Amino acid sequence: MAQIVRLDDPSDPRLHDYTELRDVSLRRRLETERGLFIAEGEKVVRRAVESGHAPRSFLMAPRWIDGLGDVIDGTDAPCYVLEESVIEHLTGFHVHRGALAALERPPARPAATVLAGARRVVVLEDLVDHTNVGAIFRSAAALGWDAVLLSPRCADPLYRRSIKVSMGAVFRLPWARVDDWASTPELLADAGFTAVAMTLGEGAVPIDEVDTDRPLALVVGSEGHGLTRHWESASPVRATIPMAEDIDSLNVAASVAVACWQLRGPSLRT
Amino acid sequence: MAQIVRLDDPSDPRLHDYTELRDVSLRRRLETERGLFIAEGEKVVRRAVESGHAPRSFLMAPRWIDGLGDVIDGTDAPCYVLEESVIEHLTGFHVHRGALAALERPPARPAATVLAGARRVVVLEDLVDHTNVGAIFRSAAALGWDAVLLSPRCADPLYRRSIKVSMGAVFRLPWARVDDWASTPELLADAGFTAVAMTLGEGAVPIDEVDTDRPLALVVGSEGHGLTRHWESASPVRATIPMAEDIDSLNVAASVAVACWQLRGPSLRT
Repeated sequence: MAQIVRLDDPSDPRLHDYTELRDVSLRRRLETERGLFIAEGEKVVRRAVESGHAPRSFLMAPRWIDGLGDVIDGTDAPCYVLEESVIEHLTGFHVHRGALAALERPPARPAATVLAGARRVVVLEDLVDHTNVGAIFRSAAALGWDAVLLSPRCADPLYRRSIKVSMGAVFRLPWARVDDWASTPELLADAGFTAVAMTLGEGAVPIDEVDTDRPLALVVGSEGHGLTRHWESASPVRATIPMAEDIDSLNVAASVAVACWQLRGPSLRT
Repeated sequence: MAQIVRLDDPSDPRLHDYTELRDVSLRRRLETERGLFIAEGEKVVRRAVESGHAPRSFLMAPRWIDGLGDVIDGTDAPCYVLEESVIEHLTGFHVHRGALAALERPPARPAATVLAGARRVVVLEDLVDHTNVGAIFRSAAALGWDAVLLSPRCADPLYRRSIKVSMGAVFRLPWARVDDWASTPELLADAGFTAVAMTLGEGAVPIDEVDTDRPLALVVGSEGHGLTRHWESASPVRATIPMAEDIDSLNVAASVAVACWQLRGPSLRT
């Protein structure tokens, strides 16, 4: 059972994990170094703990203790309680639904573990926007996809904003960051997946013509430039979403939602 | 040809249209009262003017004058030029891609005008988030939908954030806000549309079983509560996107992207 610790000094060293939360680049470095991540909001904190992530501490305003009482009671991590205004002073922002938790960042998973047993995997190359990464996890999980692979430069699924936008889907879908990105097309082929590269380029097939009977990897490129040439040429299928004339493109998260639906597995087909 | 006016005082009364841009509720009232809207970013400013909206003025840092030179030259509106730091001081935020424009808000269109000739219309009830409204316009335009109807409480498509997220699709797709919301189901039926209400409720058909041969109205409810009972009972078709077990729901913008794709018209089918 956790200890409830009332504090009133935002500079208390026990609150170290929660400082500078608005500075994205600082937090990215700091969270990796310290091996932690931050969950925000009652529902997301609950899902983080219930999906097996070990909390280091909780931080919340008094009125949120009851709602998360069972979650807090089930762990040994301390729960720091501060007035809402002090939390805002500490973190630099209005905390959505009052509660935060700092949790142990899980060890990196090998791609092979994540792919084992999967039939639908989303592959993200260099997406830099945490909102897009979170939205893609949410849609992929809802539409029955099994796993996500990320390039080394891709935004962190365990960054606070990604977690929140995903509504906790980053805890549900197994994912791995692949260090040896150049050989990922081979890795997928060896694991039995047909890679479908999403592209606006010439010669791509309309996505509704892609054969959905086999295990599929949906490969999506960065917000600005799309997929690298390497993936465009290494993917056995290049597909596009047919669009109205004179339209640049769909937002990447919308594209992935459409593609995850169109290429969904047999369990969601009627 | 527009006049280039160099200013250095952010309190200059000529900059009146650009104050308090970060205060959403104030801006909503103020923009309606003054009959204007704000476009942000070189591409969006260009699209706003090219789609026929009359600029009242432009506001930009010196380095953006060249890129928008042809747009500015084509109008009589003054172009106010300030240092970037002064613009940030005035508006309260870092201006994305340096340029802003204040434009005349177009007169409200009657729903009947917007529906004339359309075969695919998105109907939004009480969506309060400008990002969601903008994202929905962008997806609907890309996937060949023809028009949008909005409930009285729906977020403003011409609010700065909606415009930006839509990438200017709010200028491309005809839209109308319907005052007499309760009778909108009848309005649609009389105009020959079959209303398809998106719902998570019991008894809805999977969206891939909806007949796409006829003119369709896709009806979507608010982020929190979904559609009102009125629409649920007044819509001839209630449809749902089949999802994996234990998942709450897709984000509303992702749902609309999937539905706009699944129910797309014949021109985007292969």
